[in-house]
Amino acid sequence: MWTVKCGPVARHPNEKNAQVKQIVSTETGLLAIPLAILPVSAEVTRMTEEQFNDRSSLSAYLSSRRSGRPRNMVAPGPSDAQIEDIVAIAMRTPDHGKLAPWRIVSVAAGQRDQLAQGFRKAYLAAKPEAGRLELEGLDAMAHEAPALLVLLSSPVQSTKIPLWEQQLSCGAFAMNILHAAHALGFVGGWITGWPAYNEEVRNLFGSAPERIAGFLYLGTSNIELSERPRPELTDILSSWTPPIDQ
Amino acid sequence: MWTVKCGPVARHPNEKNAQVKQIVSTETGLLAIPLAILPVSAEVTRMTEEQFNDRSSLSAYLSSRRSGRPRNMVAPGPSDAQIEDIVAIAMRTPDHGKLAPWRIVSVAAGQRDQLAQGFRKAYLAAKPEAGRLELEGLDAMAHEAPALLVLLSSPVQSTKIPLWEQQLSCGAFAMNILHAAHALGFVGGWITGWPAYNEEVRNLFGSAPERIAGFLYLGTSNIELSERPRPELTDILSSWTPPIDQ
Repeated sequence: MWTVKCGPVARHPNEKNAQVKQIVSTETGLLAIPLAILPVSAEVTRMTEEQFNDRSSLSAYLSSRRSGRPRNMVAPGPSDAQIEDIVAIAMRTPDHGKLAPWRIVSVAAGQRDQLAQGFRKAYLAAKPEAGRLELEGLDAMAHEAPALLVLLSSPVQSTKIPLWEQQLSCGAFAMNILHAAHALGFVGGWITGWPAYNEEVRNLFGSAPERIAGFLYLGTSNIELSERPRPELTDILSSWTPPIDQ
Repeated sequence: MWTVKCGPVARHPNEKNAQVKQIVSTETGLLAIPLAILPVSAEVTRMTEEQFNDRSSLSAYLSSRRSGRPRNMVAPGPSDAQIEDIVAIAMRTPDHGKLAPWRIVSVAAGQRDQLAQGFRKAYLAAKPEAGRLELEGLDAMAHEAPALLVLLSSPVQSTKIPLWEQQLSCGAFAMNILHAAHALGFVGGWITGWPAYNEEVRNLFGSAPERIAGFLYLGTSNIELSERPRPELTDILSSWTPPIDQ
């Protein structure tokens, strides 16, 4: 889809695009300009959108993993049985002390209007002067994608396992929900936004000390996925330098 | 390896073992009794340890993912180039605002004695009366497995993205480090323990507001992996019940 010239050798076609896009983005303020206008050298990578979430092998998948945007998700979404499979697979998440400090509440397709009502009520309670656009945005959020899983961090308080580890495990569990959805051929997206931080919304699904860790939308993307910038490896990985006084 | 009788149909051989083991564990207080002594019915699953981390497909892998124990990890571990690959793959982690609020410090094989010294110094500063066994445990922790990656949560403070999301992203990143290591044929284990919560140890690798999110050990298991109990699906997944007042 894109033909790009690359400078330093990139680790993966996706990253190469990300690097180019990041440069383009920085220089122009635009993210989606046609990259084909760049000069083509011998070092060329052609990347098609179909390469995202490539399930031909575990490595290919992990190297091409990409979330989808809920507003672009259409049917088919996972069936109830597939949602059970997705959650069951994701339960294989590291979890110190075997506390399973996370859980999923699945919102059915027929309940989206009620969810929208719940969001709206909570929002108006917090912001009585809310404008039309804000309320429309909330309403859209309640209706997006064929499947919606509300992820709750459910820490166990009567344990020696620190809350910190229980929260990290929740993030790992969310990651595995997305992987499991992708394994079944769907695309997933992990979204937060205003409702994730409102107590009244949290009370629709759970109770303190539970906390919304995100809304996991699942479905089929009606547009081709596109790459987003990723960090530079050298910013993320470093070699340890022991202190000199040792 | 194990021959087990099962009751209700389980989703996956691993889970079946987990269910049986959980029952056995509850009833006997022992986790590792030979399951082959149980009577064998028509509904039998034979599970070999080799089924863990089955890389034949993405679904097979996710359904059989299992961490290893650092103390059982031996060579070969990942090379420096493979560690770069593992971290690069894991950088494809959901991360609201593209902050990359996590990083890895790799401790080389030749630096383990210095790491042990660092742990010991910090421990003795906090607990001057420390006993021999405690210090030996710390020393072992510093020396385990061929490869050791220190994972830091590195939140960005000058942003509208809540700390909560940055921490959850760190948990997701850790999950992907393990997946990436497994994709390359190694086994990974995510460990915390005393050093993960000590400021002096944190200062060996980073600085506030960074926080150690775990020690990620990578290598090859010198024993067969074994299943651990997993939660019941019905405890983790529920259908939403909207409030009646709507």
